[in-house]
Amino acid sequence: MPHPDVLISEVGPRDGLQSVQATMPTADKLRWIDALHVAGVREIEVASFVPARLLPQMADAAEVVRHAVLLPGLTVMALVPNRKGAEAALAAGVHKLTMPVSASVAHSLANVRKTREEMVQEVRAIAALRRDIAPHVKLEAGISTAFGCTLQGEVPEDEVIRLAVQCVEAGADESGLSDTVGYANPAQVRRLFRRLRAELGDKAGAAHMHNTRGLGLANCLAAYEEGVRTFDASLGGLGGCPYAPGASGNVVTEDLVFMFEAMGVHTGIDIGRLIAARAPLMAGLPGEPVYGMTPEAGLPKGFIQGKAHA
Amino acid sequence: MPHPDVLISEVGPRDGLQSVQATMPTADKLRWIDALHVAGVREIEVASFVPARLLPQMADAAEVVRHAVLLPGLTVMALVPNRKGAEAALAAGVHKLTMPVSASVAHSLANVRKTREEMVQEVRAIAALRRDIAPHVKLEAGISTAFGCTLQGEVPEDEVIRLAVQCVEAGADESGLSDTVGYANPAQVRRLFRRLRAELGDKAGAAHMHNTRGLGLANCLAAYEEGVRTFDASLGGLGGCPYAPGASGNVVTEDLVFMFEAMGVHTGIDIGRLIAARAPLMAGLPGEPVYGMTPEAGLPKGFIQGKAHA
Repeated sequence: MPHPDVLISEVGPRDGLQSVQATMPTADKLRWIDALHVAGVREIEVASFVPARLLPQMADAAEVVRHAVLLPGLTVMALVPNRKGAEAALAAGVHKLTMPVSASVAHSLANVRKTREEMVQEVRAIAALRRDIAPHVKLEAGISTAFGCTLQGEVPEDEVIRLAVQCVEAGADESGLSDTVGYANPAQVRRLFRRLRAELGDKAGAAHMHNTRGLGLANCLAAYEEGVRTFDASLGGLGGCPYAPGASGNVVTEDLVFMFEAMGVHTGIDIGRLIAARAPLMAGLPGEPVYGMTPEAGLPKGFIQGKAHA
Repeated sequence: MPHPDVLISEVGPRDGLQSVQATMPTADKLRWIDALHVAGVREIEVASFVPARLLPQMADAAEVVRHAVLLPGLTVMALVPNRKGAEAALAAGVHKLTMPVSASVAHSLANVRKTREEMVQEVRAIAALRRDIAPHVKLEAGISTAFGCTLQGEVPEDEVIRLAVQCVEAGADESGLSDTVGYANPAQVRRLFRRLRAELGDKAGAAHMHNTRGLGLANCLAAYEEGVRTFDASLGGLGGCPYAPGASGNVVTEDLVFMFEAMGVHTGIDIGRLIAARAPLMAGLPGEPVYGMTPEAGLPKGFIQGKAHA
């Protein structure tokens, strides 16, 4: 397998599972994560450390982390909205924390019951905690609703970029941009990531795209062309946000990996094994719709991974 | 409505209807075409002039053309595989003929029972016919399976470009590239359209993309960035090829128009009215699945067409 050109960060076990009603049993989560790892996935957002009464799907977060960190070469991420969550995630042994910092005032209040300014303070507090007790752990701020919001509508680009910069100034190692509700278009993606990279250099983080209006892959392509090299995606296209009305599935990992590999952009992920990782996902969520056009259509005749295709 | 930057060529009444088992009643076809015209669509491939025993869905091709040419400002296209079809299409009054010329040897034989060389001769014959009896009518060659073929596998790029050039030399006004079976990737799309435009200049024609592996919009974006300004698409994502195993739906017109309009690239098409044109389509094909993520998700809050969105 050639050295990867891009990092595909699988968010299904967090973004995907938080958005379905059913709770996947822990044993199925572990089998799914193992299968993703076998396919070559090297970063997984495995859980969210939030109160179990709010998201019962994530009640086993610590147990999932404790398993995932045993897999060699895997960066184990967890979402943490606040200091309490960060403490629990660090205690469980995560390698990387990601914090949802909304650029939309309305979504910030709905999602974490805090203003944007309060969330920057939270980033500062967690950065301090990390420095004190786990300096090797990475801290990422994901700027939610960076491309628009179903509650607020348009989100000014200046505010998005300012917030991303503030998070890095507060101690985050990187700030990425999330299209939480699937409003982004390729021109906007290029504009915002160009600005983000101009401001933050290599502290500009991942593109987290949803496919709500079918533009997910086009938006990833636009981000790639602006130099972004980390992409969040969700196996089977699960995903959404319980506090963002109308948010639906993430970019489908299988289709994203196929797009890059067909372009000759190496992901380090074996597509056949990635498609096989759908089995434990479906077994753990019986009856839940699972998306993905490449798995349904199959690979092109004569397609050989690792070779740029004519 | 601002002056269009791109031409969206609707192929649903041909590519879409040829690929479903049911035959849409003529009256429904006419209502559907009227609704597309009302939405601002200015080019429609309304039918295929092929023997009714092969494609009974197209038996009313002449009647459909005779209606469509009454709509002001509309370019009425029809697919013709041979001289006999061209004669019938010209007699009905079409404005533009499109010929399917396969770059894959295997698909050419399966689709039109002719070799590629024989199809270039057919283009020459139809160009001569057009010159003699209808010199105002445009003639396009659509190079099918230009990005790969489910029968043959890889299709050499040199052969694709050579065939496109041969068609123009034989008298076609333009040659476009079709991803008949949904194998294309954005890097390949950029490479092939760059070569096509270098060879043919403004005789380089449309991008005709299918969404079989979910890459349809990303491929259109790549083609746009290479300077392509005409895009085939199909309302509700219908489409396929009866003689190309595994070919499935075209790029969804609604999602493509949303992508371009959100980018500030004007299509001349009113998205609301375009979505309304799904009603006569669905009425004419009861029970047939109709795709499109933008119609399902709705437009973003505060979205105003004709304005580039932040």
